[in-house]
Amino acid sequence: MAGSPQSGVPQVRNTVFRKMTHVYSVRVYYEDTDMAGIVYHANYLKFMERARSAWVREMGIDQNQMRQRGLFFAVRHIDADFLIPAAFDDQLNVCTDVQSVSGARLILNQSVMRADEKIFSAAVTLALVGADGKPTRMPEAIQRNAIKWL
Amino acid sequence: MAGSPQSGVPQVRNTVFRKMTHVYSVRVYYEDTDMAGIVYHANYLKFMERARSAWVREMGIDQNQMRQRGLFFAVRHIDADFLIPAAFDDQLNVCTDVQSVSGARLILNQSVMRADEKIFSAAVTLALVGADGKPTRMPEAIQRNAIKWL
Amino acid sequence: MAGSPQSGVPQVRNTVFRKMTHVYSVRVYYEDTDMAGIVYHANYLKFMERARSAWVREMGIDQNQMRQRGLFFAVRHIDADFLIPAAFDDQLNVCTDVQSVSGARLILNQSVMRADEKIFSAAVTLALVGADGKPTRMPEAIQRNAIKWL
Amino acid sequence: MAGSPQSGVPQVRNTVFRKMTHVYSVRVYYEDTDMAGIVYHANYLKFMERARSAWVREMGIDQNQMRQRGLFFAVRHIDADFLIPAAFDDQLNVCTDVQSVSGARLILNQSVMRADEKIFSAAVTLALVGADGKPTRMPEAIQRNAIKWL
Repeated sequence: MAGSPQSGVPQVRNTVFRKMTHVYSVRVYYEDTDMAGIVYHANYLKFMERARSAWVREMGIDQNQMRQRGLFFAVRHIDADFLIPAAFDDQLNVCTDVQSVSGARLILNQSVMRADEKIFSAAVTLALVGADGKPTRMPEAIQRNAIKWL
Repeated sequence: MAGSPQSGVPQVRNTVFRKMTHVYSVRVYYEDTDMAGIVYHANYLKFMERARSAWVREMGIDQNQMRQRGLFFAVRHIDADFLIPAAFDDQLNVCTDVQSVSGARLILNQSVMRADEKIFSAAVTLALVGADGKPTRMPEAIQRNAIKWL
Repeated sequence: MAGSPQSGVPQVRNTVFRKMTHVYSVRVYYEDTDMAGIVYHANYLKFMERARSAWVREMGIDQNQMRQRGLFFAVRHIDADFLIPAAFDDQLNVCTDVQSVSGARLILNQSVMRADEKIFSAAVTLALVGADGKPTRMPEAIQRNAIKWL
Repeated sequence: MAGSPQSGVPQVRNTVFRKMTHVYSVRVYYEDTDMAGIVYHANYLKFMERARSAWVREMGIDQNQMRQRGLFFAVRHIDADFLIPAAFDDQLNVCTDVQSVSGARLILNQSVMRADEKIFSAAVTLALVGADGKPTRMPEAIQRNAIKWL
């Protein structure tokens, strides 16, 4: 029957539902390594934050202006798997997907790839906080933009 | 018989079941803060790692000797809640408990306290890896020591 | 008798010549090392800054209050010699001496010692800057305190 | 007249004498800032090191291979002027010139530019050290390459 979900155009719907992924490139430098000869584990959080800042900048959101109004993105929760070590000079890609967005929080899936190999993976929950450190409703612009990446 | 160690004395049993907690003190410096005026989120991972290294050192395990044999503790998983921001000059305590220990991995619960306030909390899974980056069986000394902290 | 220690003004000379040195202790952790297996060179600047903050705190100066008034110490110049590498678990002392103090700037000599061995040495010039980023006259309290350490 | 500066090939001499400058781009992220709202001073040393590593990589020198042979570049001396603060999201260029090169050491002039404004400047002395931590003669390839940048 025309218009029924069964008879429709799944390839269009697939397109609509295909997740967009933001890709950000990171080179490993001396400062990122530790005496085990690999990337120090805490530095993956820096790599993810660089990718988030680039993603937000490319959306047209200016974190310097946000800061002047006392608004900051705050990391609330990170659940991270350290899968394979990275080494000096490695060229890595941080891939960022939106898992969910609401007025109160944004949940991202971020992974670090070395060529086709996933070496790190995390779910990161962010909130927007005001000058008083209290959570603030995400501006509609941020919600609208983040939704595009769902 | 009343009063005999065998028949009475729940306080002994309490001792047996009372969890031991390792406490490590951290002062917040400029390097730890970011432009939001608070501790940069990734730095809590550094604070936890300092506490783990102090704990391991106090157990009599020498990570320099381990390194000469190509052995390193590797962080496999972190599930972290960032509860309350910390600020410059704050005096923090990192509390470390063993959640579980096996031949293959060690799971710790680590939290950061500011006086009586819990400001950060995480479960951290560690493995021991050899020179080839492959997981290695934890030496019995480490297992025995970690078990004491269960 | 002229020129004899007995007849002179030893208390003045003692005051003049006795240099006070502030000593601050640092332990080397994983985060401080790099893949060369030693302390990453930039981290000596962090160690010096921790020592300066401790020194200023012990003088009774509250950098959080300064910050609320838009006042910050800014590093203007560093001339540093990296003499001997430090390794994981090393217990280091950062020694801080005042070289000179004026209304506009404070010059410190800071060195890092491992037992009796000097492994790092630097001259650090600091200014006080206001909310506009412009240099500000050091409050007399700071000058008075710093002078005591000359 | 043959051989006279007037009649010769000044364009070649110009080429020979024109200093080559290596330019490396850095974006300022959250991790680079401190509670004063500007780039934390020690991080300029990281920016310079990233630029040096990129420069060395572009010369065809592989620091991972060097490391396997126990060879590392060690920073011996830094004389640095912190001229103007940088802020979050700033796009900076690290400019690197060779000041001098010998079998024993390499002296670079490195500055950080924000558009046309010089915000940081340093002279950096590097040595090559072997597995024993002792200085080693720079391989001719490094000397030859570095000379090209004089």
